[in-house]
Amino acid sequence: MIIDIHGHYTTEPPQLAAFRDKQLAGIADPARRPATADLGIGDEQLLKSVEPQLKMQKDRGSDLTIFSPRASGMAHHVGTEAIGIQWSRVCNDLIHRICTLLPENFAAVGQLPQFPGAPPANCIPELERIVKELGFVGVNLSPDPSGGYWTGPPLTDRSWYPLYEKLVELEVPAMIHVSSSCNPNFHFTGAHYMNADTTAFMQLLQGDLFRDFPALRFVIPHGGGAVPFHWGRYRGLAQEMKRPPLSEHVMKNVFFDTCVYHYPGIELMTKVIPVDNILFASEMLGAVKGIDPETGHHYDDTRRYVDQVKSLSDSDRKKIFEGNARRAYPRLDRQLKAKGR
Amino acid sequence: MIIDIHGHYTTEPPQLAAFRDKQLAGIADPARRPATADLGIGDEQLLKSVEPQLKMQKDRGSDLTIFSPRASGMAHHVGTEAIGIQWSRVCNDLIHRICTLLPENFAAVGQLPQFPGAPPANCIPELERIVKELGFVGVNLSPDPSGGYWTGPPLTDRSWYPLYEKLVELEVPAMIHVSSSCNPNFHFTGAHYMNADTTAFMQLLQGDLFRDFPALRFVIPHGGGAVPFHWGRYRGLAQEMKRPPLSEHVMKNVFFDTCVYHYPGIELMTKVIPVDNILFASEMLGAVKGIDPETGHHYDDTRRYVDQVKSLSDSDRKKIFEGNARRAYPRLDRQLKAKGR
Repeated sequence: MIIDIHGHYTTEPPQLAAFRDKQLAGIADPARRPATADLGIGDEQLLKSVEPQLKMQKDRGSDLTIFSPRASGMAHHVGTEAIGIQWSRVCNDLIHRICTLLPENFAAVGQLPQFPGAPPANCIPELERIVKELGFVGVNLSPDPSGGYWTGPPLTDRSWYPLYEKLVELEVPAMIHVSSSCNPNFHFTGAHYMNADTTAFMQLLQGDLFRDFPALRFVIPHGGGAVPFHWGRYRGLAQEMKRPPLSEHVMKNVFFDTCVYHYPGIELMTKVIPVDNILFASEMLGAVKGIDPETGHHYDDTRRYVDQVKSLSDSDRKKIFEGNARRAYPRLDRQLKAKGR
Repeated sequence: MIIDIHGHYTTEPPQLAAFRDKQLAGIADPARRPATADLGIGDEQLLKSVEPQLKMQKDRGSDLTIFSPRASGMAHHVGTEAIGIQWSRVCNDLIHRICTLLPENFAAVGQLPQFPGAPPANCIPELERIVKELGFVGVNLSPDPSGGYWTGPPLTDRSWYPLYEKLVELEVPAMIHVSSSCNPNFHFTGAHYMNADTTAFMQLLQGDLFRDFPALRFVIPHGGGAVPFHWGRYRGLAQEMKRPPLSEHVMKNVFFDTCVYHYPGIELMTKVIPVDNILFASEMLGAVKGIDPETGHHYDDTRRYVDQVKSLSDSDRKKIFEGNARRAYPRLDRQLKAKGR
């Protein structure tokens, strides 16, 4: 089976954006606050909204998408912490409904109500709710809830530890994924996402987080940002900084996904990153939806690239497509096994 | 001949750091300000200080290094604008002396007295001094003088235009290079540098800078950050944003260097980036000075990687090693031709 571990719900019915408008308008004028968190979206509308994803699964031959709210929509830096908590619940509940309606096609990953300056521990109630009550198998964790100004501490700071303890206890991995950027220097999908991936990896290299949390698992999306392209630099920096080899220091706990939208990138990745650390993903319908004139195929049809890499054995490909995901997301593995998949 | 376009003076005599200490101590206590900008460094000490670079040129077979002050030392965000102006002069003067003492081995690139919030036009006097009076062939330009908080405008903002006009008038390219990071999220050589490279490229993709400045040339160092690894993403984003193809939109004006410290990275780069846009560089003595246990050679001996790429013709390699640098740095080309090189 082929598990795509990185899909965001980017085809939401318009009621979700209308709700968000009311939420934020409510800061200026409390009379405009949404009267209810019931968006008035019926099951049929929800099913209709994910038809593009289902079609792509079929066309491209993937079986299951690990599905989370729109990354740029999380916008932790917008509004107040209370607004963010309500917003996270609403977004997560939609994901839960989709995954309940289409359990063969989607598994749920949630957003956390992070807020700039607020303790990450404040996210624990929503984390427990989505995992224990709703059956989510992972979460997205932003290393920069400030939205592009990076005013918080690195991921290795002890303020994150209560949240990490809970992630370990619940056996859910975190995908390290920023949201939109309110900094005009950083285009969200063209700079902020890549930078966050690179930054997170370097923070992990500098720190000793996995000595304290040997069972914590992070997924770094978008192929790990700049990291595989500069793998020699990172190996060399670890060496200069007297860190253990990356294989021991971070690669027991970190996975990179395959959201790299051309064959040479995926080829490089499979050359330098151990096959056990690569998770298949396409981020469909994501940042780059067009057709590559050089190939005639969609840029984000990443399965084609993985299939083309000759140096991968069948067993390697099975790890990338399925085995590693079952290892990174143990709750997903158990859910699948319970259904005989 | 082999031109290494990216070397920083990282082996400065201790008097330079002592001067900087006095400069910054002088903010707290004016009595500690340096009495003179004469560092008391004799020619012999200067020559001695660059012996490591000369040895590496010889060992690795490069002929000329384009040499600029230590990048992390620029620290535009530290002190006051007046201190930065003095600091730039002192650093640039040292580079000038080295290039005058060893004109066969070094060509000079300068640092600019950028300061957070100050108009980039304030750098023009120092730019004119180093190019017109001292014969510098390029400058380093930081896209983030705030040192990791990115509080200024993007490179496409019109506030940069007076500086760009002068760069074009003087026929000098700018290497887009940040300095140290005072943001604990960003390790300087492991995150801040890579992020700045990626960010700068995306800003150029979003904007239309080279329509306004068709003769402006930027060098994006460290292989262009994450860009070549994600070349499909950038081609796809340009397409979605209805920008012209990258070949027309930015690649007539932008060069990437080869400071990528493993063979697979250089191999990827030569596959996706047009050969006319690649400049040989090693950044010796730079971020990664160790020996790669996988090869037994220095990580930053990038010439080995370029030599190994079988798909490059002799003519391609000549472009990467020399021809493109002469095109990107026309003042260097003229200086070399005047000496019959």
